Amino acid sequence: MASCYPRRLTLTPKVSFLPDNIEVEVPPGENLLRAALAGDVALNAACGGSGTCGKCKVRVQRGTAAANPGPQLTEEEIAEGYVLACASGVTGDIDVELPAEALRVAAGRPSERVQKVLQDQLLSGRSFEDRLPTFTLDPLTRKCRVSLPPPSLEDGEADLERFRRELAREHSVGEVAIDLPLLRTLAGTLRAGDWTVTASLFEGHEGVRLINLEPGDTTQAHYGVAVDVGTTTVVAELVDLSAGKVLASASDYNSQIRLGDDVISRIVYARKPEQLAELQSMVAKTINGLLRRLCQETGVGRQTISAMVAAGNTTMIHFLLGLPPRYIREEPYVPTADAFPSVSADELGIELPGAVVQCYPCVGSYVGGDIVAGILATGISTASELTLFIDMGTNGEMVLGNADWMLAAACSAGPAFEGGGVKHGMRATEGAIELVRVDRQTAEPRIITIGQQPPLGICGSGLIDAAAELFLARVVDPRGKLDEKRSDSRVRRGENCLEYVLAKEEDSGLSVDLVLTEVDIDNLVRAKGAVYAGMATLLDSVDLDVSQIDRVMIAGAFGNYLEIDKAIVIGLLPDLPAERFTFVGNSSLLGARLWLLAGEMRERAVEIAHRMTYLDLSTVSQYMDKYMSALFLPHTDMGLFPRVQEKMAALS
Amino acid sequence: MASCYPRRLTLTPKVSFLPDNIEVEVPPGENLLRAALAGDVALNAACGGSGTCGKCKVRVQRGTAAANPGPQLTEEEIAEGYVLACASGVTGDIDVELPAEALRVAAGRPSERVQKVLQDQLLSGRSFEDRLPTFTLDPLTRKCRVSLPPPSLEDGEADLERFRRELAREHSVGEVAIDLPLLRTLAGTLRAGDWTVTASLFEGHEGVRLINLEPGDTTQAHYGVAVDVGTTTVVAELVDLSAGKVLASASDYNSQIRLGDDVISRIVYARKPEQLAELQSMVAKTINGLLRRLCQETGVGRQTISAMVAAGNTTMIHFLLGLPPRYIREEPYVPTADAFPSVSADELGIELPGAVVQCYPCVGSYVGGDIVAGILATGISTASELTLFIDMGTNGEMVLGNADWMLAAACSAGPAFEGGGVKHGMRATEGAIELVRVDRQTAEPRIITIGQQPPLGICGSGLIDAAAELFLARVVDPRGKLDEKRSDSRVRRGENCLEYVLAKEEDSGLSVDLVLTEVDIDNLVRAKGAVYAGMATLLDSVDLDVSQIDRVMIAGAFGNYLEIDKAIVIGLLPDLPAERFTFVGNSSLLGARLWLLAGEMRERAVEIAHRMTYLDLSTVSQYMDKYMSALFLPHTDMGLFPRVQEKMAALS
Repeated sequence: MASCYPRRLTLTPKVSFLPDNIEVEVPPGENLLRAALAGDVALNAACGGSGTCGKCKVRVQRGTAAANPGPQLTEEEIAEGYVLACASGVTGDIDVELPAEALRVAAGRPSERVQKVLQDQLLSGRSFEDRLPTFTLDPLTRKCRVSLPPPSLEDGEADLERFRRELAREHSVGEVAIDLPLLRTLAGTLRAGDWTVTASLFEGHEGVRLINLEPGDTTQAHYGVAVDVGTTTVVAELVDLSAGKVLASASDYNSQIRLGDDVISRIVYARKPEQLAELQSMVAKTINGLLRRLCQETGVGRQTISAMVAAGNTTMIHFLLGLPPRYIREEPYVPTADAFPSVSADELGIELPGAVVQCYPCVGSYVGGDIVAGILATGISTASELTLFIDMGTNGEMVLGNADWMLAAACSAGPAFEGGGVKHGMRATEGAIELVRVDRQTAEPRIITIGQQPPLGICGSGLIDAAAELFLARVVDPRGKLDEKRSDSRVRRGENCLEYVLAKEEDSGLSVDLVLTEVDIDNLVRAKGAVYAGMATLLDSVDLDVSQIDRVMIAGAFGNYLEIDKAIVIGLLPDLPAERFTFVGNSSLLGARLWLLAGEMRERAVEIAHRMTYLDLSTVSQYMDKYMSALFLPHTDMGLFPRVQEKMAALS
Repeated sequence: MASCYPRRLTLTPKVSFLPDNIEVEVPPGENLLRAALAGDVALNAACGGSGTCGKCKVRVQRGTAAANPGPQLTEEEIAEGYVLACASGVTGDIDVELPAEALRVAAGRPSERVQKVLQDQLLSGRSFEDRLPTFTLDPLTRKCRVSLPPPSLEDGEADLERFRRELAREHSVGEVAIDLPLLRTLAGTLRAGDWTVTASLFEGHEGVRLINLEPGDTTQAHYGVAVDVGTTTVVAELVDLSAGKVLASASDYNSQIRLGDDVISRIVYARKPEQLAELQSMVAKTINGLLRRLCQETGVGRQTISAMVAAGNTTMIHFLLGLPPRYIREEPYVPTADAFPSVSADELGIELPGAVVQCYPCVGSYVGGDIVAGILATGISTASELTLFIDMGTNGEMVLGNADWMLAAACSAGPAFEGGGVKHGMRATEGAIELVRVDRQTAEPRIITIGQQPPLGICGSGLIDAAAELFLARVVDPRGKLDEKRSDSRVRRGENCLEYVLAKEEDSGLSVDLVLTEVDIDNLVRAKGAVYAGMATLLDSVDLDVSQIDRVMIAGAFGNYLEIDKAIVIGLLPDLPAERFTFVGNSSLLGARLWLLAGEMRERAVEIAHRMTYLDLSTVSQYMDKYMSALFLPHTDMGLFPRVQEKMAALS
């Protein structure tokens, strides 16, 4: 469960909920309400954890909670040790007594075993960085100190030839190419450094190129930047290339958002060349903002950053490079390029003078460099285990394979996972309901919102949670229909269809009831159906079945907030034992970092892009059948979901 | 003599001067006065051929002259067939009767034999283009038509990879590099050409690069430009690269002139970076002007010009590329580079979108790519004959060698050859005295000016003529001193020293007498002394003497107007039989054209630059001795000038 912890663990405090002694391990500082929901403890949380409803009162029996008492507690209650769970942080082991109304723990509480596995999985997910492939440090750019004998009447070789001669002698670098802007400064730099200089070199397809030259010995100041260019979010890491270490990271919204929320609307916007240029400069601007923050935070000078590696989906890389994306969405859907030339940051308007920029190669229009980067980072291309890699978003991209073969597919899931096409859907920002529990008897919801603000809507992971919980509570049937006949439920007839009230007007941040409609559920079912059918088609095409998958790697920011067991309940993820799932976080960024640091990683990435076979689902006739079969919760063929079947049986 | 014909010959009309029947062959359209001076016929020409003095009257006996009768002839004279020689053009064989006062032909008239040789030499000089090295056409850039199968769902390769695939298949071109600006247009161009495009490719050190891509088949429109970037003049040729033919040429002053007449003053000006940038843009502007004219004249579109090759001295190439020239003139005199990277025309502000620009490699600060180009064009590096190549200007550059070895030197001749440091000196422009004859008895001068305008001053070739003629007429002694005692002469005492009146006030275009002073002669003697000493030092360093030189190749615009026998008389050129001299014209431009047209020529040029050994004259102690010995007319050692000695003896 509590798969919603993005932070890194160092210690894992234990919370015991009394009197049933339900134990939950949580990251230090974790919110107590969130811990309760992770342990499926039925604490009321109508206001999404925003501290306004006052219903999540608990009494601390042992240990202390970093509590922020609100107006909902009386002075006596505070004196007796009561806190609001939603306003309390767990700093160490703690015993907490639940109020009488919360004692009725949901029957579906996970067994000790499952709970333990989930906690392991959390730990492993969050420390995935420590499990990256190993490599020999060999950064994309190198710095060489060169000492030249000054010219004399006896040795009157020209500056450039002298520099090349000594570079070859001291560093065995052959003919180095030099561009005009640097050649113009060569004479001055050589003399400013009193004939000792530091050359930044880049070795590409076309040989070795000088990309910067500084007077004196500056070999220690050698930095690079890894960037994940997401449709919504851009994340950058500043990497010390001489040590191979990440110094800082920063993220921001892709400022292209204001020209179009999704890839398609931006492709449409880019039809006019000046508007494509605008999109290009927007993403450059976003990256420049991140660079400013990274340099400020670390004190690194931007002139010492000689390399940048970007990974992103094919359209985002087209935008970054200013390539027209038009034909990506017109049949037969070909991008301008699969592998992109090295360019200089200056050409992109990125403020890293002279730095070289490389973009991850993509497999095609719908399987981008972010996926290739993810495959590299997760080591799938060299592993013997059969692995399914999934990156879910508007486009669900997935790769199935191992060291011998890799098959990629992309399916159009629609915007549901990002909160789109849903009545009260929203992106995963403050106020979005991200965690939902539904009481199996009363069908009453308990919710937590991002930032624990009064709820404003529901995001993708909340939607999955809600659908799964409603299904487990039999408020929703396998066809995704709400049960109108439940007298105790929050189900009611809305404008066009039945709906379930997630948060009443008085608890919501808006002046309306927040609801989940049958249409919303239907959209989610189509989205998950597309992903599941994609996976099933991939498996089918190589005559394998779900049970043969050794590992499922879940990538992307979405993955970090996804509750795996809930995703299995609705049939989004295959019904496999929990230990086979791994959250890999932003594997696109990890891949970009690896490209920056090691030649063998760069070679492997190129090999991955070449080796990966793209299966165009639209050309596979069985895909539509599989999709139709997957439009049920969890699936028409319950045999594919034995654990869900078991869980349902236990509940009835 | 009449070495002053820059035009190409097709027919050679013969002029017979009666009654002595002195025959002179001339290019069609040649001016009759000029023909007379070439034949050393003593026609009076005080006004430089401008038609104002009326003293060059002749009577046409047979044939016709294209005459423009001036006010100096009476109607009777016109009726009797008289014309002014200076206003008449020779269009076919013609017999001309000289007036009584011209019948006294100078005793030093060349023998029939010498005259014949000079005419051969003229023909060969002017047709040197026909004697360029042979090569297989293999231009610097190539154009390939590529037909691609359109993408489909079955063959969904990206545009770039598809283009590369077909380029490799159809033209065996390996991995072609592509820059971002072109990649941005790739998708559009492929579709605009309905999947047939023409690629312009450039193969450099770093592999093959796409430099232009046009829709459809445009392989026939394939052009390049060869440019000689001179300190004073820039000359450009438009070359059809598919046919290997020159379509047009144009020349203009280097507009840098207004920031400094000579190389040194421009180097000083370039100390400030913004002023270096100004000099860079000036030469680009000059080239752009030439390109406009070439395109206009031929109707060639500039987007079809994919290559430009520039040859020039090392400083001029530094200016063209915007490289700081400062260290060229500071000991130990090293340029930024000897070999220059390929750059794009856009980087230089040259209006040839996407075109590649290459500059000839130089040997060092004082032996530039113009000399390397000249050596290539003259075939010296592959010839068995021992050849002396001379390019005279403010810096006299010379190369001695053959297929086995080449030795280069540069001497500072000062500005005398360009009319500088001379009281009435001027550049070789309209009104400059370029041809001088001095009557052996009376010491009266006969002059011709450029454009046959009233004389405004004297240019380099006129100065050499004047000094030689005055020496032969014994008006000037071997020390360069004027003979004050000649009662019949034009010698007089001027402000600071003796002077010789070349044109009296009434015949001149200025309101003063135009004179040649002893100081002027002294400057010329120093200039020619520096050149001769340079040549002698080169010979000495390889233990050879003058007589072993098989050929002397005279390059540069100056060479075209130089009278070889006069240059020998003053001791500027070695005293060798006339047939050993060849004028090669603008061999720098010829070399640039060869680089443009053939890979083997490019390879040979690079090899020439590497093979050539530079002898720094300032480090050779004998150079100064040789210079001192050369400060006489023709030399202290008359044994080195047997033919001059013979000529002097015949005169006395």
